[in-house]
Amino acid sequence: MEKKPIKIVTIGGGSSYTPELMEGFIKRYEELPIKEIWLVDIEDGKEKLEIVGAMAQRMWDASPYDVKVHLTLDRREALLGADFVTTQFRVGLLDARIKDERIPFSHGMLGQETNGAGGMFKAFRTIPVILSIVEDMKELCPNAWLINFTNPSGMVTEAIIKHGGWKNCIGLCNVPVMALKDEFKMFDLAEKDFIHQFAGLNHFHWHKVSDGNGNDLTDKIIDKMCLENSATPANIHDVKYLKDQLKEMQLIPCAYHRYYYMQDEMLKDGLEEFNGIGTRGQQVKKTEAELFELYKDVNLDHKPEQLTKRGGTYYSDAACECINAIYNDKRTTMVVSTQNNGAIADLPYDSIVEISSIISGKGAMPLNWGKFNSAERGWVQCMKAMEECVIKAAITGEYGLALQAFMLNPLVKSGACAKQVLDELLVAHKKYLPQFSDKIAELEAEGVESKDSVVMDLMVNGH
Amino acid sequence: MEKKPIKIVTIGGGSSYTPELMEGFIKRYEELPIKEIWLVDIEDGKEKLEIVGAMAQRMWDASPYDVKVHLTLDRREALLGADFVTTQFRVGLLDARIKDERIPFSHGMLGQETNGAGGMFKAFRTIPVILSIVEDMKELCPNAWLINFTNPSGMVTEAIIKHGGWKNCIGLCNVPVMALKDEFKMFDLAEKDFIHQFAGLNHFHWHKVSDGNGNDLTDKIIDKMCLENSATPANIHDVKYLKDQLKEMQLIPCAYHRYYYMQDEMLKDGLEEFNGIGTRGQQVKKTEAELFELYKDVNLDHKPEQLTKRGGTYYSDAACECINAIYNDKRTTMVVSTQNNGAIADLPYDSIVEISSIISGKGAMPLNWGKFNSAERGWVQCMKAMEECVIKAAITGEYGLALQAFMLNPLVKSGACAKQVLDELLVAHKKYLPQFSDKIAELEAEGVESKDSVVMDLMVNGH
Amino acid sequence: MEKKPIKIVTIGGGSSYTPELMEGFIKRYEELPIKEIWLVDIEDGKEKLEIVGAMAQRMWDASPYDVKVHLTLDRREALLGADFVTTQFRVGLLDARIKDERIPFSHGMLGQETNGAGGMFKAFRTIPVILSIVEDMKELCPNAWLINFTNPSGMVTEAIIKHGGWKNCIGLCNVPVMALKDEFKMFDLAEKDFIHQFAGLNHFHWHKVSDGNGNDLTDKIIDKMCLENSATPANIHDVKYLKDQLKEMQLIPCAYHRYYYMQDEMLKDGLEEFNGIGTRGQQVKKTEAELFELYKDVNLDHKPEQLTKRGGTYYSDAACECINAIYNDKRTTMVVSTQNNGAIADLPYDSIVEISSIISGKGAMPLNWGKFNSAERGWVQCMKAMEECVIKAAITGEYGLALQAFMLNPLVKSGACAKQVLDELLVAHKKYLPQFSDKIAELEAEGVESKDSVVMDLMVNGH
Amino acid sequence: MEKKPIKIVTIGGGSSYTPELMEGFIKRYEELPIKEIWLVDIEDGKEKLEIVGAMAQRMWDASPYDVKVHLTLDRREALLGADFVTTQFRVGLLDARIKDERIPFSHGMLGQETNGAGGMFKAFRTIPVILSIVEDMKELCPNAWLINFTNPSGMVTEAIIKHGGWKNCIGLCNVPVMALKDEFKMFDLAEKDFIHQFAGLNHFHWHKVSDGNGNDLTDKIIDKMCLENSATPANIHDVKYLKDQLKEMQLIPCAYHRYYYMQDEMLKDGLEEFNGIGTRGQQVKKTEAELFELYKDVNLDHKPEQLTKRGGTYYSDAACECINAIYNDKRTTMVVSTQNNGAIADLPYDSIVEISSIISGKGAMPLNWGKFNSAERGWVQCMKAMEECVIKAAITGEYGLALQAFMLNPLVKSGACAKQVLDELLVAHKKYLPQFSDKIAELEAEGVESKDSVVMDLMVNGH
Repeated sequence: MEKKPIKIVTIGGGSSYTPELMEGFIKRYEELPIKEIWLVDIEDGKEKLEIVGAMAQRMWDASPYDVKVHLTLDRREALLGADFVTTQFRVGLLDARIKDERIPFSHGMLGQETNGAGGMFKAFRTIPVILSIVEDMKELCPNAWLINFTNPSGMVTEAIIKHGGWKNCIGLCNVPVMALKDEFKMFDLAEKDFIHQFAGLNHFHWHKVSDGNGNDLTDKIIDKMCLENSATPANIHDVKYLKDQLKEMQLIPCAYHRYYYMQDEMLKDGLEEFNGIGTRGQQVKKTEAELFELYKDVNLDHKPEQLTKRGGTYYSDAACECINAIYNDKRTTMVVSTQNNGAIADLPYDSIVEISSIISGKGAMPLNWGKFNSAERGWVQCMKAMEECVIKAAITGEYGLALQAFMLNPLVKSGACAKQVLDELLVAHKKYLPQFSDKIAELEAEGVESKDSVVMDLMVNGH
Repeated sequence: MEKKPIKIVTIGGGSSYTPELMEGFIKRYEELPIKEIWLVDIEDGKEKLEIVGAMAQRMWDASPYDVKVHLTLDRREALLGADFVTTQFRVGLLDARIKDERIPFSHGMLGQETNGAGGMFKAFRTIPVILSIVEDMKELCPNAWLINFTNPSGMVTEAIIKHGGWKNCIGLCNVPVMALKDEFKMFDLAEKDFIHQFAGLNHFHWHKVSDGNGNDLTDKIIDKMCLENSATPANIHDVKYLKDQLKEMQLIPCAYHRYYYMQDEMLKDGLEEFNGIGTRGQQVKKTEAELFELYKDVNLDHKPEQLTKRGGTYYSDAACECINAIYNDKRTTMVVSTQNNGAIADLPYDSIVEISSIISGKGAMPLNWGKFNSAERGWVQCMKAMEECVIKAAITGEYGLALQAFMLNPLVKSGACAKQVLDELLVAHKKYLPQFSDKIAELEAEGVESKDSVVMDLMVNGH
Repeated sequence: MEKKPIKIVTIGGGSSYTPELMEGFIKRYEELPIKEIWLVDIEDGKEKLEIVGAMAQRMWDASPYDVKVHLTLDRREALLGADFVTTQFRVGLLDARIKDERIPFSHGMLGQETNGAGGMFKAFRTIPVILSIVEDMKELCPNAWLINFTNPSGMVTEAIIKHGGWKNCIGLCNVPVMALKDEFKMFDLAEKDFIHQFAGLNHFHWHKVSDGNGNDLTDKIIDKMCLENSATPANIHDVKYLKDQLKEMQLIPCAYHRYYYMQDEMLKDGLEEFNGIGTRGQQVKKTEAELFELYKDVNLDHKPEQLTKRGGTYYSDAACECINAIYNDKRTTMVVSTQNNGAIADLPYDSIVEISSIISGKGAMPLNWGKFNSAERGWVQCMKAMEECVIKAAITGEYGLALQAFMLNPLVKSGACAKQVLDELLVAHKKYLPQFSDKIAELEAEGVESKDSVVMDLMVNGH
Repeated sequence: MEKKPIKIVTIGGGSSYTPELMEGFIKRYEELPIKEIWLVDIEDGKEKLEIVGAMAQRMWDASPYDVKVHLTLDRREALLGADFVTTQFRVGLLDARIKDERIPFSHGMLGQETNGAGGMFKAFRTIPVILSIVEDMKELCPNAWLINFTNPSGMVTEAIIKHGGWKNCIGLCNVPVMALKDEFKMFDLAEKDFIHQFAGLNHFHWHKVSDGNGNDLTDKIIDKMCLENSATPANIHDVKYLKDQLKEMQLIPCAYHRYYYMQDEMLKDGLEEFNGIGTRGQQVKKTEAELFELYKDVNLDHKPEQLTKRGGTYYSDAACECINAIYNDKRTTMVVSTQNNGAIADLPYDSIVEISSIISGKGAMPLNWGKFNSAERGWVQCMKAMEECVIKAAITGEYGLALQAFMLNPLVKSGACAKQVLDELLVAHKKYLPQFSDKIAELEAEGVESKDSVVMDLMVNGH
């Protein structure tokens, strides 16, 4: 089967992650004959796009391969005839993320970019944009694969597939990759000698692992996790799980379960940062600035070591590997966000779930998981219901649904304070939430204020 | 169809509610020809049993009917040949309840007798006892109906039906009765002119109401609820729901949803009482003492007005009505805890649910409910999963499951503090938790202390 | 609640059943204050409409009530402002039915008007018409109730509710009514002393019965059924079920199960009639002619005894009772076709099922049924899948789906003969199947012939 | 991971297929280091066991590998410490099969060894035996894998896993293997360039195929199937499917679907053989006799060509490949019978289904399938329900359930004739059906006769 050369389009191409993506493509070029790469961004990201775009071209020029990196603010020009579209954009940039973190913290709730109040707002801002991209794709590249790694990756992927009706989509995340890499090390075994089964939602999955003889390793990993640091991504505080809980569960929780199982500790740590060195978003903003300084260096033609510390490492590599597996029908087992179709019996048939899947020329074929035990079932059903409210609210701008999502989200304190933080976030993100414009106007008329200035002051004064 | 005279057995017969139960039976005697009533209690409740038993006999003597009230500490003697067994016992009496409330509050969590940490412990103490009653019934009265109104009524009923294998069981609660009575008043309509459909779990259900023409009244009730006090039982603080949430939901939450939707407010109010006049259990203890003083009056031969303030009003009346509906095949629509069998599509097939049902000679025939919308679905699935962990832990004494239940329960703060409050409650209730004895010994060896004395001191000193 | 006077519209008003309908309304007039009745029919049925319409008016005139019976060929005029619309039309009249019966028989398959090949064709002809009625109703009487008793009643009701999106619809059938009436007689008990639960599909349901004490009567009824004739409608041959099967089942099958459980015997009996006195449709045609002769008698002002023999007795009465139960919120338990919503756990959520339901001012509220045992589950799932293929083929005219339905239908022999009978029926009913017109043209070009003439000849010559 | 040498046990070792099994193991020896092979049979099969056992040892002796083939009638001796147990026994030998075929045909129904009346009786005879093997395995080789290819493979596997509680079991069949081999040829593509997904039940599954670019090949295969012979096993008549049906379905049916989709044609062909050269079983009996003559040749030390015509070719090879995939954690995609766990959403969670699965060191991990369209859903649900009745009847000896299974089976004519053929088969197989002994005695008392003699006469006279 002869294959045509590939056109890759990256929405949010001005991201600091782009060099990792380039590195991933260069590494796989012999298998993955890319012809052109289009990096797309918006006016506000133009400067970054130009810096990282030039860097990207230098990386290819330093490789043995002749690939052209195109930079554009015209999404439609880029999408025309695309084979693979990757998405890594951030509506409102890091400043929006910082508000997502600081406003909840200022009400004594966890502020985090993909969980809790902030994660829901990231979805509110992102989903309308991704759906408009899907509409363009229907017209301009109807057979392309959309590889989404824009967060919250699970909800965004659900919006794309279920609401946008775009089936050729796979959602990716680096969390499972990092967990596995750590576990391989624990046992000094090769990746291929592990049998893993992940199931759940993005940033809310569990997994179990066996060796090639079918012997369970899960219990051993739990023992090790309770001893030492295990697969905690750079952006998550290293709070240990309760051993009694994990031993009962006989499943390995993901790094983000800390926010739910150990909320008290995570909140304390988060508030300390909030009142001290600043939230994760504030820290990342600094790192990003440094990265872009590096990228400006016309002699730099490979991914700098510092990018690894950025937090999202392996994300882009997972995207490249996924594209490779589809293009070359590699039947690789990857953990991806894809349509449930009953693979997890406890969740709705048309939900997007994150699950170990065989990636073939047809896309993701999930390994069937079955049912969870009671506790995991309850958690994951609660989270999926919350996600559904968020996605519908993001599309319709229905305020009541947004409030229901807030109430149901375990990281948001319930009661009038949930409404308060919802209202402040709506006003704060006004620019990026046209679907809620009427309600925001109403809230402003009632005197609800964006706490931005205060928050920013806190930041300035605090450190 | 001729009917045989009825033998009623009441486990926990020394309860202060017994006079309401007697009143209910006297009121219905023409339909419900009772021959004998057996009030059963344990050694610790002997004094109360004698007081309230004498009072019960006086009530019948003052009626036109010749019914003998038997008092006994021998459960098996009472159960022999019983037609209906009602259960209203409280393992550990009010002192255990007070610990259920005070220990969580002392960790900054809601202390409540049927919800949160305390409610789970009430289940831990009660379920082994109810299962031993079921074993006796299999032998001594294999065709009897078990009408359970021991709390947490839903979990206890699930233990009876699913784990005890006793199908002739109906669980009751006064919450739906009270909600409906309030709503009838709102519209000045007769009960028979309402069409109501309740669905959910005990203390966690929603309902919708129409008039006899099929016109929805739910939205109007929501409007009124947001104006004024609506059906808040005496034992629940009157915190208003958020109107935006209820308008979105288009379902009427139950009184206990306050603990979940308005947790912040409920916790504040509860802590104020905890630090002030004492928790609800402490207040009830006082009321109970007063009631028993009244019951001692040899001239009192009818239910005293004061009982109505006790909090559980209508409970006993619902039990009498349910027995009446079964005995006389009345096809009354009542809200009861019964086996789901798919009536609520979102919950496991063999779960016990609380649902509008036709009560006939065959027992409860639930009206089919179908699916909830996303948010209610997520909440109720989370709560049922928690219930399953609690019930299994109550039966097996598995500590890990108890911890999982604590983590999942929205009223328990997650993290190490969940384990802490679990451990303290285990030690505090040691006497009533033989299934956890090994773990309790281990905790004591680790130095976990029952905070009883401290808690009691707080109470004594504090107010 | 004051009620407005009622406008009734009957589509297919020229049916011979109309007098039973009138009788039903007259009997219930004190509860059901009808103002006007509109009988609607098409040009081909004009003569019958006029005869039966005059008869209907005479019946009202002989009653103490002042009700006007309007006759019209203009459906839209009639529907305007209707409160209840009943449907009892037959597309293609009895001649179409006769083809439905005779063409399958001529291939050695059961020919029956609601089952097998013929029943599927009745659906193909009826569903497009009922969906156009629904479209008119959306415009002209958006709050009306549609009481459907046009056969195949289950499939037609599924088309109305699921595909037409008309929720205020109840499907009716006389089969459950007749079964119950027979069973009441068996035990000499009043209707109100039976607790019945029916579940399944129209003409394919089972039920169980208890007395008011909750004692099962099902097994006793099975014993009696195996002794003597029980509830076999006039139009079904009285073939006895196998006792071993029914005793295992512990459910009472409906009269139409004979076609499936005793296919061999039913086919033999049917072929005997086909080759002898003519099929049921041919017999009915004669009875109908006689009935219309009677109706022409200007002195006849009540339902004649002969109508009872027609086969569909109690159909119209059930319709009147259903309307009464809705209008007066009577909470009557009736067996109706309504949306499943999980009431029968084995069937799709959005399927129409036939099930014991409480009929209130809101319409039908099904009693939850749960799961069937293996064998009944397999049968009913097979039949529902077949129904889905039929309904979709009726709407889309997709030939492949029609063929799939034929293959799956247990009364159609599978293989090339299924295609043969399908093709002949398509050509025979060409006039009433515009959705299949392209395929029919193709078949005619291939030389497929309507066997009408042959069939009619057979009939003429045969007897 | 070091691996221990393997002990293989084959129950029914005296089968004519054993040489294919040996060939499969010899071919894979470098990967699969077998130490010993135990061929087990019963007294009645002793002669065959000795012949084929000697042949098997000759095959190993002719190979470069030192493997000892043990022959025994003592199952328990063989099972002790086994690593893999394969089952290929036939209770009642070919004579029982011939009755399974001839008795139904003599009533005008399809007689076939794994479908229809005969297939159900094969299950009745086999399931009690396999469950007793499982009991032995629990004691003697608790970690062994049971690779079942005893027919009816799906029902036998369901009995093992669901009723016997033996999870380490995989059911195999050669039908999917043969279908795929044919399809590879159609496209001149390598096996690894196909992406296939099979789902359904043993001898009742469908599949779809894509190439490595994700392009669907299903429709093209359907086109070819309707032109020429496709993957019809030697034991199935080559009746063509109806193209209109397959084009609608967009799934490839399995070879055995002919019995259901083209029943009329298959029955005619079968009756012709029955009345002519004898049924398939009779033909096979001849082939088998010839094979054993060959096996007696002390110079024969490799699988003879003639075995390929036997009908079950690739069966044993699939077993070897499956064992290889487990032992070496190869992650091979194979089509196997394994527990559903929701992989096919339309079938019960705990059913055994036949489905494309990844075979790893943990056993079979099914690829999730999701839902079927209506028609396939109806068929497969009907068949699974029938299977459940058969399995339960096989275990309990409940006659009513056996009758229900017969009624539901699409290949058995419904009505009194179903009971007749059931009764005759019960009497005919009396020796192998101890669980039905009381009913058989009763039938014999009623004068039901085994038609064996008659059938055998027919056979003798007929040809």
